[in-house]
Amino acid sequence: MRPSQRQQNELRPIRITRNFTCHAEGSVLIEMGNTRVLCTASVEESLPPFLRGKGQGWVTAEYGMLPRSTHTRSAREAAKGKQTGRTQEIQRLIGRSLRAVTDLVALGERQITLDCDVIQADGGTRCASITGAWIALHDACEGLVKDGKIATNPLRDHVAAISVGIFEGAQVLDLDYPEDSDCDTDMNVVMTGSGGLVEIQGTAEGEPFSRAQMDALVDLAEAGIRELIRRQKEAIGS
Amino acid sequence: MRPSQRQQNELRPIRITRNFTCHAEGSVLIEMGNTRVLCTASVEESLPPFLRGKGQGWVTAEYGMLPRSTHTRSAREAAKGKQTGRTQEIQRLIGRSLRAVTDLVALGERQITLDCDVIQADGGTRCASITGAWIALHDACEGLVKDGKIATNPLRDHVAAISVGIFEGAQVLDLDYPEDSDCDTDMNVVMTGSGGLVEIQGTAEGEPFSRAQMDALVDLAEAGIRELIRRQKEAIGS
Amino acid sequence: MRPSQRQQNELRPIRITRNFTCHAEGSVLIEMGNTRVLCTASVEESLPPFLRGKGQGWVTAEYGMLPRSTHTRSAREAAKGKQTGRTQEIQRLIGRSLRAVTDLVALGERQITLDCDVIQADGGTRCASITGAWIALHDACEGLVKDGKIATNPLRDHVAAISVGIFEGAQVLDLDYPEDSDCDTDMNVVMTGSGGLVEIQGTAEGEPFSRAQMDALVDLAEAGIRELIRRQKEAIGS
Amino acid sequence: MRPSQRQQNELRPIRITRNFTCHAEGSVLIEMGNTRVLCTASVEESLPPFLRGKGQGWVTAEYGMLPRSTHTRSAREAAKGKQTGRTQEIQRLIGRSLRAVTDLVALGERQITLDCDVIQADGGTRCASITGAWIALHDACEGLVKDGKIATNPLRDHVAAISVGIFEGAQVLDLDYPEDSDCDTDMNVVMTGSGGLVEIQGTAEGEPFSRAQMDALVDLAEAGIRELIRRQKEAIGS
Amino acid sequence: MRPSQRQQNELRPIRITRNFTCHAEGSVLIEMGNTRVLCTASVEESLPPFLRGKGQGWVTAEYGMLPRSTHTRSAREAAKGKQTGRTQEIQRLIGRSLRAVTDLVALGERQITLDCDVIQADGGTRCASITGAWIALHDACEGLVKDGKIATNPLRDHVAAISVGIFEGAQVLDLDYPEDSDCDTDMNVVMTGSGGLVEIQGTAEGEPFSRAQMDALVDLAEAGIRELIRRQKEAIGS
Amino acid sequence: MRPSQRQQNELRPIRITRNFTCHAEGSVLIEMGNTRVLCTASVEESLPPFLRGKGQGWVTAEYGMLPRSTHTRSAREAAKGKQTGRTQEIQRLIGRSLRAVTDLVALGERQITLDCDVIQADGGTRCASITGAWIALHDACEGLVKDGKIATNPLRDHVAAISVGIFEGAQVLDLDYPEDSDCDTDMNVVMTGSGGLVEIQGTAEGEPFSRAQMDALVDLAEAGIRELIRRQKEAIGS
Repeated sequence: MRPSQRQQNELRPIRITRNFTCHAEGSVLIEMGNTRVLCTASVEESLPPFLRGKGQGWVTAEYGMLPRSTHTRSAREAAKGKQTGRTQEIQRLIGRSLRAVTDLVALGERQITLDCDVIQADGGTRCASITGAWIALHDACEGLVKDGKIATNPLRDHVAAISVGIFEGAQVLDLDYPEDSDCDTDMNVVMTGSGGLVEIQGTAEGEPFSRAQMDALVDLAEAGIRELIRRQKEAIGS
Repeated sequence: MRPSQRQQNELRPIRITRNFTCHAEGSVLIEMGNTRVLCTASVEESLPPFLRGKGQGWVTAEYGMLPRSTHTRSAREAAKGKQTGRTQEIQRLIGRSLRAVTDLVALGERQITLDCDVIQADGGTRCASITGAWIALHDACEGLVKDGKIATNPLRDHVAAISVGIFEGAQVLDLDYPEDSDCDTDMNVVMTGSGGLVEIQGTAEGEPFSRAQMDALVDLAEAGIRELIRRQKEAIGS
Repeated sequence: MRPSQRQQNELRPIRITRNFTCHAEGSVLIEMGNTRVLCTASVEESLPPFLRGKGQGWVTAEYGMLPRSTHTRSAREAAKGKQTGRTQEIQRLIGRSLRAVTDLVALGERQITLDCDVIQADGGTRCASITGAWIALHDACEGLVKDGKIATNPLRDHVAAISVGIFEGAQVLDLDYPEDSDCDTDMNVVMTGSGGLVEIQGTAEGEPFSRAQMDALVDLAEAGIRELIRRQKEAIGS
Repeated sequence: MRPSQRQQNELRPIRITRNFTCHAEGSVLIEMGNTRVLCTASVEESLPPFLRGKGQGWVTAEYGMLPRSTHTRSAREAAKGKQTGRTQEIQRLIGRSLRAVTDLVALGERQITLDCDVIQADGGTRCASITGAWIALHDACEGLVKDGKIATNPLRDHVAAISVGIFEGAQVLDLDYPEDSDCDTDMNVVMTGSGGLVEIQGTAEGEPFSRAQMDALVDLAEAGIRELIRRQKEAIGS
Repeated sequence: MRPSQRQQNELRPIRITRNFTCHAEGSVLIEMGNTRVLCTASVEESLPPFLRGKGQGWVTAEYGMLPRSTHTRSAREAAKGKQTGRTQEIQRLIGRSLRAVTDLVALGERQITLDCDVIQADGGTRCASITGAWIALHDACEGLVKDGKIATNPLRDHVAAISVGIFEGAQVLDLDYPEDSDCDTDMNVVMTGSGGLVEIQGTAEGEPFSRAQMDALVDLAEAGIRELIRRQKEAIGS
Repeated sequence: MRPSQRQQNELRPIRITRNFTCHAEGSVLIEMGNTRVLCTASVEESLPPFLRGKGQGWVTAEYGMLPRSTHTRSAREAAKGKQTGRTQEIQRLIGRSLRAVTDLVALGERQITLDCDVIQADGGTRCASITGAWIALHDACEGLVKDGKIATNPLRDHVAAISVGIFEGAQVLDLDYPEDSDCDTDMNVVMTGSGGLVEIQGTAEGEPFSRAQMDALVDLAEAGIRELIRRQKEAIGS
């Protein structure tokens, strides 16, 4: 039995709030159970030097946790003067995942930065960030179309992510913190709307996992992501 | 006429949400118009080395702005690797203001850290942080009393803060961003429930200000703070 | 009775030495009792990128304390690799105060940096820095006029600063270290030659202060600053 | 056809040199074609503070590339003052992979640090690091047994890693730099001697990949890792 | 002819002011012509961790230049967040030179830090730092004897330093900035009162130098240092 | 008797391997006994901003030690976030030594960076770096000539370096680690092929040294460097 009483293949309750803040070109609060992440998209009409003049745009991401989003307070990265390896790993993952479904040439010579800031953490923050950031990115792109800056939305597909893992011997979907901190295997899967895999990261925290377990976990993730993408479509009203 | 159509002595609409997040010992979302700051209080049963063994506790604060809380995106301090002078100035002010009404000996040998994170900025974030953080600190102290860790709440008084300034020749209360970025004089006043001044910081952005103007601004601030403290009392149900 | 036997409204002995060092365009050693600050003005015929092409110049300040300017040795900021929040707060204050009396357009597209380095500290270093830096800035501007780079001195007025506070119940002017480290309220006032207020920063270190106390402190400061500006005039021979 | 003329399922020539340097408790130069990584194991009879007194040891890793191990010179991380996100991601992966096959309790309260320094890079440096570091770790553990510090070697199994990917439409094993910089999908697989999966990280660099492609890639990797582990056994003479 | 009209073997005018500042246990302003360095000695009754419990003390040095001690303003190291290689090289040299004449066991388990801060630079600042710091160290040690903390002064000998070089083909003593920035060979010599060499650092800035030139330069330096040590003795009244 | 049984004037066995790695324009592994340093030369067709447009090139060096090149593991500088003073001192010395024999105008507006990375340390790493880096620089320059980028090799002479010191009362050549860590005086001498001195750095680690000792040490070093330069010539086949 899962601590949250959920079925093995059951997602946590999802809530998506668009336009959560007023300044950003896209601003989405995504809640997966108690995990809450604010994803904003900021459009800048310029590019970092190494990308200029290549006839394409860029999509990048930054990730952060508020110091007391967690059970016990973590040190503020700005005060320590550097981002942890975990933070950098996550923000690189979010950026890669979104670029996989973006036509960077169609975006034009501009950059969109997705800031994913964890307001409250209960496991699965990187996956929620990807799922929510896609909507913020979508809204920012729609704005560019509406403003006549680009002809069509450069997003070619949806992308969403979910974690799966082996908790007390069972394969479970969408791990919350009690499961995440005590599981044997933890896997994050990023998939597009058309079912293509963009990223798969599986780690044995305790015992190594078998091919059969891996296959079952990916099946579980695929079903979860299909549901997440259905919710993204609902949220953007398509 | 003020851009927001408010009267000279009119505060913006205030909304205070306690228990906004679930992990912190105190967690308050304070909204002053479009300015929204999340203030959390974290209790740690230990002290930094230089404070140990002195028979007292400590109250400190950290401040941050989400990169896209502002009109245009600001660089993330954690990514730049350091906090700006402005950030440090503000968090020192918040800490001093709260310590001014806390009996540190009664708090015992523990530290409470107030994290004030700006979700959305529209002027007056440092003042909103102080006013909101007081409530989060109050809730954390009540928790310590409830848990039997201390006998009585070590908060001796309320403390709240408001900005005042000279905008287009008129003395106005609670400046929003359009006023703040275009005013001649900007003053932040921190006051206790019993009317004692804790901090006063006035700066001539353009022309120097006169003693008469200064007196009028402090009058305006005092009235505003009395209203803020009334709202704090309402929020904590006293 | 004050530890230094001074009257409540008595400044410490002031000594101003112009051309204390030979390379800087302005170089002033200011001594307020045992507090000694070297203020140099450096003219650079260029501007930081964000200020270029706006048809105006810039005045900025940096502040530092020699490690053993204090009673016990403080760590060298260059060795620690960062400036404290206090240092940044002070250098921002010095820069703002000087810009308040400078016609930046008349200065032309150049920058003047005021370095205020504390050789010996005995309280009131930020105020001495402002008072001394004004003279160094004046001398640098005179040099620009003499060299035919600008037509008239862009300084529109004097500016000086003094601390006041409540020490053992009495309002006192120009606190030295024994008073500063043991006072209830500490206030720094920055004022122009024509009596306009540029900055006022009052902090209750212990008990909050009342409006009446605040008014008395500002009166005390105004008288002190008038004397300081008389001494500035004397020093520059006007 | 692969640029190197290799078959799809063909590893590059492997060369393993034990005791490459003389001071470290384990020192292995591993060469996979032109990729050369020096892996040293350093035993320290102490633990970082957060691990003390838990009755177990720790295995950790650090990774670096010599500035001119690459085609064009990269900036030295020590001179820039920080490690890139990529470096941190890789060293976390190496550490996790090795801990997955180490009995940390049997290791006792000591730490072994694996330094993986790339002397020459031609793709696959993280995988070569894991495969080579396992041997260095093995040698260091054997030394501890020989010195009577622990009763048996705490390594419970082998661990090795290989990259696979989709290059010009074909699934290929052990990508070199020309393949790595131009492939569609890149996957790193870490597996134990008994065939358990420890880590799997697949990324679509261009088009998303299908489940069928993923399965074929993992098959390819498994065969490659079996060969690598055969070579590890040969190297340690078991 | 030297720019300063000095003879080849002529030192610049020397001025030594003891007790230049009031807080430090030793405080010496040393002037060699226009070069002015403030050397303070700070006694701390504790040692850095790696030196504790070894039955000896430590003498160390830090070096800094005020930003406008030079012809054109240099960036403040504290603001840049790190000390240059040159600064570190110099402070290591000062520390080594002073330790060479100090009986660290006789000093007892305490540390003396010599801060050498350049108020005005005109060449030869590192040599002036060593010569001046010796006097500050002497005064601090005398204080320890006077306070009964140690029985005898742990300084076993004098130490002083001078630069020599080849300027326009001639061997010259005590280079000032115009000579230093345009010489072919630059050598710093550190010598004790009894004529022992502590440090010799010669660098060909342009053409390499011959053994004969090197010998002549060391002769010149020895004579200069004997004079400096005579002045140290005069200064401390021995 | 020396720990290594060598004669006082005997160098350790020298081994020079050119083209040790494949990407760099010059790549030399130099071994002096157990000391092994990899020296690579990287040509960049650009210059740092402060050197542009002066009609000359630049030669610079960086130095690093692999964490376990030493007897006990040293912290990785990239992980600590800064280079030690020792590292900076050494890399400045290597750069100066090589520039002393390079015609920077003849090199043209390009930069050559010499990376000297210590694979295994047993004393004398800075001297081995200079001797080996000269060959790597030579090879890179030859490549520029072969590619028709410059007409003639801009190296005007050889340069090599050796350490000498006083160990147990005797003057010895080419100190290894056991000698280096226990000697009284340590001197590094850098000399050109035509016998000109480029750099001489002598330090009394214990007792000061006399002029006579200094002279004998320089004699010893000169003989050693002549042998090293013979080996450089042999290595480049001239």
